[in-house]
Amino acid sequence: MNPSTSALLTDLYQLTMVQAYLDREMEEEAVFEFFVRRLPPNRQFLIAAGLEQVLAFLSDLHVTSEELSWLEQTGRFSPKLLRYLETLRFTGGVDAMPEGTLFFPNEPILRVVAPIPLAQLVETRIMNLLNFQTLIASKAVRSVLVAGGKPIIDFGLRRAHGAEAGLLAARASYLAGFAGTATVLAGMEYGIPIYGTMAHSFVQAHKDETTAFEHFAHAQPDNVVLLIDTYDTEAAAHRVVALAPELKKKGIPVKGVRLDSGDLADHARKVRRILDEGGLREAQILASGNLDEYRLQALVGTGAPIDSFAVGTAMTTSSDAPSLDCAYKLQEYAGRPCRKRSEGKATWPGRKQVYRQYSDNRHLGHDVVTTLNDPQTGEPLLQPVMKAGHCISPSPALPEIRHQVQVQLTQLPDQLRRLEAGAPYEVQISQALQSLAERVDQCV
Amino acid sequence: MNPSTSALLTDLYQLTMVQAYLDREMEEEAVFEFFVRRLPPNRQFLIAAGLEQVLAFLSDLHVTSEELSWLEQTGRFSPKLLRYLETLRFTGGVDAMPEGTLFFPNEPILRVVAPIPLAQLVETRIMNLLNFQTLIASKAVRSVLVAGGKPIIDFGLRRAHGAEAGLLAARASYLAGFAGTATVLAGMEYGIPIYGTMAHSFVQAHKDETTAFEHFAHAQPDNVVLLIDTYDTEAAAHRVVALAPELKKKGIPVKGVRLDSGDLADHARKVRRILDEGGLREAQILASGNLDEYRLQALVGTGAPIDSFAVGTAMTTSSDAPSLDCAYKLQEYAGRPCRKRSEGKATWPGRKQVYRQYSDNRHLGHDVVTTLNDPQTGEPLLQPVMKAGHCISPSPALPEIRHQVQVQLTQLPDQLRRLEAGAPYEVQISQALQSLAERVDQCV
Repeated sequence: MNPSTSALLTDLYQLTMVQAYLDREMEEEAVFEFFVRRLPPNRQFLIAAGLEQVLAFLSDLHVTSEELSWLEQTGRFSPKLLRYLETLRFTGGVDAMPEGTLFFPNEPILRVVAPIPLAQLVETRIMNLLNFQTLIASKAVRSVLVAGGKPIIDFGLRRAHGAEAGLLAARASYLAGFAGTATVLAGMEYGIPIYGTMAHSFVQAHKDETTAFEHFAHAQPDNVVLLIDTYDTEAAAHRVVALAPELKKKGIPVKGVRLDSGDLADHARKVRRILDEGGLREAQILASGNLDEYRLQALVGTGAPIDSFAVGTAMTTSSDAPSLDCAYKLQEYAGRPCRKRSEGKATWPGRKQVYRQYSDNRHLGHDVVTTLNDPQTGEPLLQPVMKAGHCISPSPALPEIRHQVQVQLTQLPDQLRRLEAGAPYEVQISQALQSLAERVDQCV
Repeated sequence: MNPSTSALLTDLYQLTMVQAYLDREMEEEAVFEFFVRRLPPNRQFLIAAGLEQVLAFLSDLHVTSEELSWLEQTGRFSPKLLRYLETLRFTGGVDAMPEGTLFFPNEPILRVVAPIPLAQLVETRIMNLLNFQTLIASKAVRSVLVAGGKPIIDFGLRRAHGAEAGLLAARASYLAGFAGTATVLAGMEYGIPIYGTMAHSFVQAHKDETTAFEHFAHAQPDNVVLLIDTYDTEAAAHRVVALAPELKKKGIPVKGVRLDSGDLADHARKVRRILDEGGLREAQILASGNLDEYRLQALVGTGAPIDSFAVGTAMTTSSDAPSLDCAYKLQEYAGRPCRKRSEGKATWPGRKQVYRQYSDNRHLGHDVVTTLNDPQTGEPLLQPVMKAGHCISPSPALPEIRHQVQVQLTQLPDQLRRLEAGAPYEVQISQALQSLAERVDQCV
């Protein structure tokens, strides 16, 4: 069983609603849009991510015979629903912002247009995929913004929320500008550069640190990054210096050391001095251990001689904001725009487009959210990506998405680059959209 | 590709370390233990969960030919490592606390004993599985403790961190005492009761609420729970009352209504009155919408007439503490106990047992963590579960684990049942273990 591809990875109410729709032959065209209602605390913008996985999910949508048998034996579902699921394929259309697009509250990043049973059925997994990768990319980019160009590596798999979270967090953080990941499978699946050296256990398993370092260096002569905080960080740095000449004779350079505990800035300074005085000026210092964007900013701010960082749990769980206030809402059915008006959860009706306007041809100025038939100046952000169940073109390559994120970061106004939230970016709701909402409310 | 079963869902350093071990023919017996260093804020105890998935992972451990080819073509790995991976099987032993056991910091809940390359290689996925389910079970039980016996349902899949997180959160929350889940696949895979009715979109897609309710009732005559907050909650409750007699004539009872927004206690009181006055005394009220254990406690405390709750994002992401400070540490190699002494991250060495002592034969009194060869009074919590790569017995059935959790909750001292942290539960480190740590430190 692969939960990532099962059509039953969905909420039961999707099936009960589809059953009710089929009973009434309600199969007209529905329009759903996915958007974020408001930013989490400590976020000034979000990065759209997960579209490639959504399109793969839609392209592959089917119910297996085993799943169908199980549904049948529950006795909960009508023969009509079971027949519908037996031949289930996604035949609808999708418009979306390209992955890697910076976006803001109330801006749809994805629209599904399909017969209502189908558009409804795919809600849960679409939300599950877009919420997570967007969440992680939007967290990871904050580390990228404060690292001053120093490479950051994803070390988060062990505390990611399950297998898929670990794998997709590697993808989302790379997309946001991380240099790579420790997760081997992300290398195989997505071509993301993989990094890794040794754990404390490796040092502990040897009778002394020097022997551990020596064994590792011979086993990985091109990748000698030595973990030096198992017992005493500075003492270990001296051991590295003492060992280096012998390794050098064998053509093995010490590429670097890793610090994983204590006052990282202080250790980095002391270790840098020890390495420099020991002739290891080329050896780099990698820092890890409970890092997040705030600690990165502080470390970079103090000028600590750290060359690269590994960020794990805080990024991979988006620890300060582990979910988005996102929604996938019905905006139109059978040609009739609609919206919910639940307290605190009202949404803008109809099919929408988002236009981005640049203040000086270079920096993001403001966005306008409007109805699809109300063209505005600026760059329209949603584009068709799937028609009649088929992708219009292959998804962009991950390095290309990553590059586009970096381009947009250079277009961010200064106040949006900071970790602390300032004045929010302006998202205008157009007159056309406001009028539509009023008309919709009068009709109910 | 199924990330849940791939042996490459691991950190690169596991492979580099294994390569180094194989180079030196270091394949003696290693002992690793998994434990939590300290409780997250707002947690007074944890619930061990995820063992069944760990045992399944170990039983199935293998590298596919496709994975092997990819590893080979990276050029990073020695032929010796590739040959080792080609025939990789888990042949070690595992001791563990049964799933559902309440536990505390510094108490190992799992021990792996295997040749060091093997015991090292499985680290990442073991941590990934135990961290997540333990995290979720320990969060979910807090809602169970304050709900006063009212059923709670998991609605969290859409904002869970990916596919596996959604599926396993359903399992972990059920294990902790939830009544069921909306996630269909969790019904199929784990036999967990599934619940679900309708979304706001269902109401919106109809020309009016009454028609939507009527259609749903006919499609799901045994499951008529109607969502009444799409437009105006009390108005919708009156519509339910007006529709009920006609449904009753057809033998369709209104089982309940769901509230999903606004002041839930206030709406519940008003809706209860409308339903009662309309002759729907049997109809239940289900509340959902951004609930967590604090809101549940407040709702239950005010005596709001809510019969059951759905809890989603806060539980499925463990939003206030989305990770555990957990570790899988080498405690012994080749018969030699060891520990790391990194600042703030020192661990207790050697193979350990945890003894639980009851204060009055009924309530948890304190625990003692000691070496394996130092028997204490009380109940030993770790038991052998796998020998030579084979499970000793089938994993307990999920309802049985769930029952054991409920038994232990009755044994909790009052102060540990509260949401707010009080005096911590006493975990003694035995004299034998302290002496061992001293001896180990003198040897390094």
